Amino acid sequence: MSSLDELLAGELKAVNVGLASFAEPLAAAGVPVVTLDWRPPALGDAEAAMRLARMMGDERIELANAAAIERVLAAQAVMVDVVPAHQAIPALGEGKLLLHAGPPIEWDRMCGPMRGAVAGAIVLEGWAPDLDGAERIAASGEVRFAPCHHHDAVGPMAGLISPSMPVYVLEDPTTGRRAYSNLNEGIGRALRFGANDDEVLNKLRWMNAEVGPTLSAALRSLEEPVNIKANIAQALQMGDECHNRNVGSTSMWSRQLAPALARQGEAGVRVLEFMRDNNHFSLNANMAACKLITAAGHGVPHSTLVTTMARNGVDFGIRVSGCGERWFVTPAPVPDGLYFAGYGPEDANPDLGDSAITETAGIGGFAMAAAPAVVGFIGGTPADAVAYSIEMADITLARSRDFQLPPLGFAGSPTGIDLRKVLDTGSAPVIDTGIAHRRPGVGQIGAGITRAPMECFVEALAAVEASL
Amino acid sequence: MSSLDELLAGELKAVNVGLASFAEPLAAAGVPVVTLDWRPPALGDAEAAMRLARMMGDERIELANAAAIERVLAAQAVMVDVVPAHQAIPALGEGKLLLHAGPPIEWDRMCGPMRGAVAGAIVLEGWAPDLDGAERIAASGEVRFAPCHHHDAVGPMAGLISPSMPVYVLEDPTTGRRAYSNLNEGIGRALRFGANDDEVLNKLRWMNAEVGPTLSAALRSLEEPVNIKANIAQALQMGDECHNRNVGSTSMWSRQLAPALARQGEAGVRVLEFMRDNNHFSLNANMAACKLITAAGHGVPHSTLVTTMARNGVDFGIRVSGCGERWFVTPAPVPDGLYFAGYGPEDANPDLGDSAITETAGIGGFAMAAAPAVVGFIGGTPADAVAYSIEMADITLARSRDFQLPPLGFAGSPTGIDLRKVLDTGSAPVIDTGIAHRRPGVGQIGAGITRAPMECFVEALAAVEASL
Repeated sequence: MSSLDELLAGELKAVNVGLASFAEPLAAAGVPVVTLDWRPPALGDAEAAMRLARMMGDERIELANAAAIERVLAAQAVMVDVVPAHQAIPALGEGKLLLHAGPPIEWDRMCGPMRGAVAGAIVLEGWAPDLDGAERIAASGEVRFAPCHHHDAVGPMAGLISPSMPVYVLEDPTTGRRAYSNLNEGIGRALRFGANDDEVLNKLRWMNAEVGPTLSAALRSLEEPVNIKANIAQALQMGDECHNRNVGSTSMWSRQLAPALARQGEAGVRVLEFMRDNNHFSLNANMAACKLITAAGHGVPHSTLVTTMARNGVDFGIRVSGCGERWFVTPAPVPDGLYFAGYGPEDANPDLGDSAITETAGIGGFAMAAAPAVVGFIGGTPADAVAYSIEMADITLARSRDFQLPPLGFAGSPTGIDLRKVLDTGSAPVIDTGIAHRRPGVGQIGAGITRAPMECFVEALAAVEASL
Repeated sequence: MSSLDELLAGELKAVNVGLASFAEPLAAAGVPVVTLDWRPPALGDAEAAMRLARMMGDERIELANAAAIERVLAAQAVMVDVVPAHQAIPALGEGKLLLHAGPPIEWDRMCGPMRGAVAGAIVLEGWAPDLDGAERIAASGEVRFAPCHHHDAVGPMAGLISPSMPVYVLEDPTTGRRAYSNLNEGIGRALRFGANDDEVLNKLRWMNAEVGPTLSAALRSLEEPVNIKANIAQALQMGDECHNRNVGSTSMWSRQLAPALARQGEAGVRVLEFMRDNNHFSLNANMAACKLITAAGHGVPHSTLVTTMARNGVDFGIRVSGCGERWFVTPAPVPDGLYFAGYGPEDANPDLGDSAITETAGIGGFAMAAAPAVVGFIGGTPADAVAYSIEMADITLARSRDFQLPPLGFAGSPTGIDLRKVLDTGSAPVIDTGIAHRRPGVGQIGAGITRAPMECFVEALAAVEASL
């Protein structure tokens, strides 16, 4: 019997709306009382609440969102090649440009891990002889910076993509649209966490010289390209949510590519060892697939579909289908998570990376029901994981036709954040994420859950209304 | 509020024990009634029920079971090699002996799929020039038959192991105990379903000549052997139950072996392709691990631990720790399942294969909670899958320390069937299984759920009591 049924039947005497503690005296007195999980719309901002009321039923928005989400649901993502970034992204061939995670940011505001990654990438490219020199030209303005997202790309954590790095080339065969991501360096000390010593740079040099070309040769030898969207769909049946758990996705993909890599001689053997030893190897390719999927829904006038959520370690930014290239930004929160031994919240960098593209595309935290074992890494219980996926259906426009959640009777994963629904329900998008140490080079110190900060959604709502 | 609480509170007027239909008139009359899911112990057999009452608290049995289950829980299983069966199992080098699934059976009683597999194996071994000749020497007594289980081995479906076939060699490093299984031929037409045409036999010849030796070379080149028990434990976190769903297990294992196989040249490439194209490739190795685990608990006097459940397509048989090599057999049931297009229950062979060793070791149907996606193959819902794992805890002695079920808060999988508990609760062990066509060579026509028939448990109970 629902609370409403009980109320109508006269059995319920009180409904408490808001703080649970309000109900305690009634309950103590034996009065049947139910507490509704209610949060004020639009953060209690009266102007935003009025705006939200006007926009909730607006037919122009409804039609725009229907068109945008259909494109998202229909988008496909196959991997066609791995090439040096400057070949895929022509801007990287023009002067000293580096791509980074999250919304735009300049050197003077960058967080520690991103500065470390920038300095390492500059030495990798040979633009400076050492890290000190690299920092100097980064600060001088000689090196330019742009978000990965401005060039159809994504990168986890610091998200550095420099011209010589190999990138995955993903394509939607129907539209010809492409998206890119860098390759995962493995766990431990890695450029994406700001590590930039010789060991880190030598691994990146090997990835440039051998991993990229070998993967390219293997991929181009396949009769059919690897379907990354299908791989994600299968991985969701294998306990991955494809953000913080990628073991199924990596294993499936490694198994699929293994014969073609085995034909590449000793280089192929070394790449297979590299894939064997990193349970997150597939993350970056999965992110590029999510970029392709979300980009399909971008650029529909009046649509309130969120097509980007990304963090640079200082700012959390979103972009919205109907708002063009504009970013709406808010300070990035620190994730609530499990820390590796010896670390705690005081060591944590605020939220970092483009990997929230997974949640934006309906996997990651939104598909956590599929990945009960991820709670061993990020905290909580399997029941929490299911609850997140149920809650996220309240703020999304559709359920995926391809990404299914087995514990929820194979319901499609909640897909396509409607910023109106976020503000109306007070449910902020849930993101499960790695946690970087705030000092460059220390690396990952934990993983956990964060919620998108609501302020940027309030700002975006006003921008969509202004466009109507 | 539980039914008991309701009864004590005077709110419940009737408790119905037994058939649900007894309660219908009361319920129709508006009397609050609850039906208990109760089945009479020992199938309602009065003599067996009395025996069960005597044996439920018997301290000799309790101590024996505690010792037996501890050995089961502690057993390990690593893969040390792949060798021709006659090397691993010396009896296969002496005359014309074939091993088969399930309890002992002779040619004249064998089901269609097993006869087809026997004939194919005889031609494979060169003991007869063609299938007609093979059937003649099988019927004449010139070829002898023995259960795989009599030689520390297991095989899925018909379970044929002939001298030249490669077998996995699994070992418990603590005890030195070994167990064996044949290699999985892939889906479609296969000897294990009784197919025996030239295509099937040529594939087996290739497996003898290339797959076995190549896997052996790769395995022997590893610094550490592949830990199959650990692989199963990880696969349970990846949506496998390791009986009818092995995609995680196969993918993980393929990824782990890929570099070593890639070093074996073109033969390694072909083996990697073979592993890539069969989502059940790891099943046989997982079964051998389960054989090693269950065998560890066998041979403890007075123990009621079930250490074998196996089917030959005619009989369902169990063996019990305290009853030596004796089989207790009952006619094999037909599984209740999903049939491939064009087939139905009238086409189905009764239950077949040694693969119920997975359930005997606490995975397969007992771990179905971990594998919600398996219901797409065998029928039912994810909730059913969870319910099976919960129910099986009623008939088992312990929870695995290594095999965890994520949706049940990472509880250990119910492990070690106590035949007393089976008879006391009326809950028969659940087995999820493939379904073979009753005609040889047609192959798999579906998959589903079956329950172990109870009669063999009644007989085994009497045998344990007689030993006290």
